[in-house]
Amino acid sequence: MAVYTDVSDEALTSFLTDYDIGDLVAFRGIAEGVENSNFQLRTTQGDFILTLYEKRVNAQELPWFLGLMQHLAGQGVSCPQPVAARSGAMLNTLAGRPAAITTFLPGVWPRKVKAAHCRPLGQALARLHAAGQSYAPVRANSLGPDAWKPLLESCRGQTDSVVAGLEAELDAAFDHILPVWPGQGGNPDLPRGQIHADLFPDNVFFLKNMLSGLIDFYFACTDILAYDIAICLNAWCFEEDGSFNVTFARQLLLGYDDVRPLSAQERAALPVLARGAAMRFLLTRLYDWINTPADALVTPKDPLDYVKRLRFHLATETLDGYGV
Amino acid sequence: MAVYTDVSDEALTSFLTDYDIGDLVAFRGIAEGVENSNFQLRTTQGDFILTLYEKRVNAQELPWFLGLMQHLAGQGVSCPQPVAARSGAMLNTLAGRPAAITTFLPGVWPRKVKAAHCRPLGQALARLHAAGQSYAPVRANSLGPDAWKPLLESCRGQTDSVVAGLEAELDAAFDHILPVWPGQGGNPDLPRGQIHADLFPDNVFFLKNMLSGLIDFYFACTDILAYDIAICLNAWCFEEDGSFNVTFARQLLLGYDDVRPLSAQERAALPVLARGAAMRFLLTRLYDWINTPADALVTPKDPLDYVKRLRFHLATETLDGYGV
Repeated sequence: MAVYTDVSDEALTSFLTDYDIGDLVAFRGIAEGVENSNFQLRTTQGDFILTLYEKRVNAQELPWFLGLMQHLAGQGVSCPQPVAARSGAMLNTLAGRPAAITTFLPGVWPRKVKAAHCRPLGQALARLHAAGQSYAPVRANSLGPDAWKPLLESCRGQTDSVVAGLEAELDAAFDHILPVWPGQGGNPDLPRGQIHADLFPDNVFFLKNMLSGLIDFYFACTDILAYDIAICLNAWCFEEDGSFNVTFARQLLLGYDDVRPLSAQERAALPVLARGAAMRFLLTRLYDWINTPADALVTPKDPLDYVKRLRFHLATETLDGYGV
Repeated sequence: MAVYTDVSDEALTSFLTDYDIGDLVAFRGIAEGVENSNFQLRTTQGDFILTLYEKRVNAQELPWFLGLMQHLAGQGVSCPQPVAARSGAMLNTLAGRPAAITTFLPGVWPRKVKAAHCRPLGQALARLHAAGQSYAPVRANSLGPDAWKPLLESCRGQTDSVVAGLEAELDAAFDHILPVWPGQGGNPDLPRGQIHADLFPDNVFFLKNMLSGLIDFYFACTDILAYDIAICLNAWCFEEDGSFNVTFARQLLLGYDDVRPLSAQERAALPVLARGAAMRFLLTRLYDWINTPADALVTPKDPLDYVKRLRFHLATETLDGYGV
């Protein structure tokens, strides 16, 4: 939970004069969010979200993210829509930070995932993928397979503080992922496009079990579409005790197929993609776990959940093995 | 900035069925706030604030606070108004915590105080005091003069880590406050009533330099009315460099007098009340500074600002000495 940069009322009022969205009515920091500072902003014309981009986001990439959100919203995907200033610019500066205003999305993210969430989730993910096909700019996945070994290297010597033997376990796990990764030994022809790449429950809003929108596109990138499903299998389909919920996974895949039927090749690749997704979140959590100062505003997430998920995926060779 | 207790969407939906305020539309944690967990809540009927009361608030005192807010709102003071459940109860339970819903107040708190804020502030404070006269229940000030020596005792031995010699300085300062405190050597007949007792800039909302409301009544108590002005002198009338802003103080007192003219006795007591107010905030900040664990969600406020303010007040015997 975080607001890293505070914004003075005077600076905000001045900033808003560059926009045609009415006068300031209310302004509160939002506790959710880890990477950026987010504020709920009300004007005489309605509700908006103001985001100040903090250091972990590469400012040069912001136009790509905002362009994607604008494109997706234009294609009917319910996501925050960047609001342009009078100048036409979606990205401006406030309190010394790149800043953008987006539309406010109603809904509440599910603290406890239920089966009823997973089919709408799959449908929304497939719609995002379909809508992204016509967004041409490319952003490489900076947390893809090439980033994993360097991430582990930067934690080397400290990894076993999380679980004894973890470092050797991860070294060995790479041999079961990288050589069979799509394009690196695995199928090189899986459909690619714009993926969300971080579609955890706190980025998906629901109203009465109807999905009302997707948020937080700041890990989005151009990658294998089915990898996004593999991320959701990790993020949505495990119980708190670490067990895999087959019902949730079935609903997720059913929902996806409702909109964009997965090919046999994509289905076949899901287990290795799921291993890779577990590895990716394990490694960034491991890195944050080791490198977050004790007095940081944000409590790092325990990487242990993803150690368990990785082990589960490594023990499973095919989608049948998941019971899906 | 803090949300200490998260609330599941299911628990919230269930909680809301006890209220006649429509269906859930959105729900976000608010970053501001130190003592309790606050959420911005939108329903099909409008906007509300949901507060979960955390451990530092005495649950038995919550009806007093909520009753005061209801009373003040009923008297035309712009403050959050508790929303009763269908049962009539303003205080209920959510996620194992006492919880209340209040109305949403538009406005933005001033990050940088200007003279234009101070007269409306004084007027609002006087209106609060006038409106509070008809709220009969009494709550003693748990952070009044009787609490100060025990607070310092609990920090003894660690106080000088803030500034060398601070412990002896505070011991000596008591001799210039307690024996002349109203009722303890000073004038025993100053008007008393319900005071806010924590009216810092972040608890006062403005819209275009018009004061739109007061929030956070969880330090309110029954005490000397002029003590609330003394708190505002400390909280609003010092520059970042520690210098006293006479213009702000004049505007504050002018505003107060607009609504409820201060008596000569109250004016004469202001310097010692201002010393006491500086001591009170100095001591709680000192306590938090020493006792907040490094990994706490909230960064404690530096007590040093209040050491400087206390020194300033101790050097001033009369309101004329302030230049007011």
